[in-house]
This record gives sequence, C-alpha cells and structure tokens, in this order.
Amino acid sequence: MNYCSQCGSPVKFEIPEDDNRPRHICTQCHHVHYSNPKLVAGCLPVFEDKILLCKRAIEPRNGYWTLPAGYMENGESTRHAAQRETLEEANARVSDLQLYTLTSLTPVSHVQLIYLAQLEDLNFSAGDETTDVRLFTEQDIPWDKLAFQTIRNALHFYFEDRKSGIFPTRHIDLDMPPGRYVEQP
Amino acid sequence: MNYCSQCGSPVKFEIPEDDNRPRHICTQCHHVHYSNPKLVAGCLPVFEDKILLCKRAIEPRNGYWTLPAGYMENGESTRHAAQRETLEEANARVSDLQLYTLTSLTPVSHVQLIYLAQLEDLNFSAGDETTDVRLFTEQDIPWDKLAFQTIRNALHFYFEDRKSGIFPTRHIDLDMPPGRYVEQP
Repeated sequence: MNYCSQCGSPVKFEIPEDDNRPRHICTQCHHVHYSNPKLVAGCLPVFEDKILLCKRAIEPRNGYWTLPAGYMENGESTRHAAQRETLEEANARVSDLQLYTLTSLTPVSHVQLIYLAQLEDLNFSAGDETTDVRLFTEQDIPWDKLAFQTIRNALHFYFEDRKSGIFPTRHIDLDMPPGRYVEQP
Repeated sequence: MNYCSQCGSPVKFEIPEDDNRPRHICTQCHHVHYSNPKLVAGCLPVFEDKILLCKRAIEPRNGYWTLPAGYMENGESTRHAAQRETLEEANARVSDLQLYTLTSLTPVSHVQLIYLAQLEDLNFSAGDETTDVRLFTEQDIPWDKLAFQTIRNALHFYFEDRKSGIFPTRHIDLDMPPGRYVEQP
C-alpha cells in the first residue's frame, strides 16, 4: 500500500496511537488502514462412496486437483460462500453442509473452512477456473496430483473418519513457510 | 474507496472481466481491489463455575459486558488471535481452547469465532478497551447488559451444554439487519 484509498495522499507505515503494531496511516487525512486475514470457504462434496474434485485451470497449482473453494465475499455466510464456490467451480449443487476442517494458514494470513457436503446430483461440469471435474473413490484419489496440503488433509481425515461414520470438526494450524500448500484459491 | 492504494489514481466501481460482481478498479494501473469479510476471534473463559466477562470502554456498546474478542491480525492463527485478544482486553491467560461458536454476521461481513477456554489463574484486570473484568456465575450474568447477540448466544449455549458436559461447535448465521448485535469489537 502506497496511497490512502480515502483521499489519495501518501501513507506512512507506523504504529498508531493506542495501538501496538504498525499500520498504513494517511499522512494527510490520518485514516488508519487495517489489513486482515482472508477467509477461504469450500466443500468436500460426497456422492455415495465418491468425492468430487476439480482440476485447476489457474495458478497457483494449475493442472492439480483440489476441492472447490475460494475467497468468501462480503454479505454472505460461510456456508453460502462454500456452496457458491462449489457452484462456480464445478457447476455442482450441495446440501447438508457440516463444518469439517478449519485451517489457519499463518504465513499467508488465510483461514480456510471446508464443509462436508452431500452432492445433490450428477449434473456437474467444469466452471471457468476449472478444466475437469470428476468423482473419485478412495482408491482413485490422485494423491500425488493434489494442489494443496489442506486438501490432502481434508481427504485424509475424511477417509479415516468414514470408517467410524463420525466426522468431528478438525482444527489445524499450518505455520510452515509458504510453499506448495499455499492456499490462494 | 476513492483512490488506488497502489498508484493513487481514482478508482471506478465496475465488474472486472472474468468476474461476476463489481470491484474497485484503478482507472490508471487497473489494479483490482477486493474487499472481504473480517474475522473476529475471542474466548469464553471458564474458571470453576464462573465465566469471565469484560465491560466495554469503547463504542459500540460502551459500558456493556462482552466476552474478550477482536479482529484477527495477519500472521497469526485463529486460536492465537483469541488468546491475544483475551490477554489484551482482560490481561488474562487461557488454555485448552476449543472452537465453540462460528457465527456469520452477514449484513456487516464479519465471521466470529468464539473458543471455549480455561482461565489459567485469577490474575486478570481491565485492558485498554475495558473498564472492568469480572467472573460471573450463571445466576449473576448481566443478561440485559450484554453488548451483542453473539455473546448472548455463546453464553446461552454454554450454560445449556454444561448440563451434559458436551460442548459441540455451534454454527450460526445471523442475517438480521445491523442493530445492537453488530459485532465491531
């Protein structure tokens, strides 16, 4: 950030009065600009014994497989965001959403929520940011072609929990340095 | 938003190519500025049969009681944010954090996470944004002096769940129009 989005003047990066960390502050109108973590929401869509995955058409991890997920928008709930992303990326409708993984990706300041969900029908297809959408059984999951560590985690948890039929919310802090797991949906 | 934070030129509010909703776009450098929901994290600190509450020293809801909570910062996990806010607002140390409520406050584009936590000791005191910190039994909770609907919800759930000793994660969408529940920590 170089300029104030309110008045267009240059900003400085200093600790405001009554604060304890540096922020971008306008040198003219003194507006304090905060930067906060972003929320990513998505689904783990289940159909019988299969999971829906999307093949990414965009960077990062173009060509790798992922669960449908993306940045939450203003004015929607986390569940609605997860359903919308599933519709946008896979043209797929899901229901019975249940919070399954909550992952803090500390180095990139993202928080990812993945909902376990029922895929309603087989009328799915690739959206704009996707080249392919398929259902995979556990045996067919392309483990070496998954886009992100969080996706791998969610799938591992799912197949493990499926044995008992109990799917508790998993809470994960990923604080390793940015690498291939970086969650930029 | 009036000006581009990258180059200082005026922005327009239009739907970018390959997008489906309007964003602030720089008229000169064409940078697209996204605005996303903010995460609020906090704790419901338990000590024996009592709950720690903070009396707010700031607007909104100055003078009303709340759980310690505030905006998550970049570079921290959700649990760390909840612990930090508890330390900042109540000078209180908590452990054994367990995700308890996840609330989408759709009209104000906030997502609030409240963690059930054990208060470690009685060495707490009011922080900068607080005038008083106290422990309350269920009978003493100031129900008509609580700051926000989300705080009321978390406390109601807690006293209900305490009967069984089972504290499942509660998932709530609050989409009523902004009012006294508005969560601006």
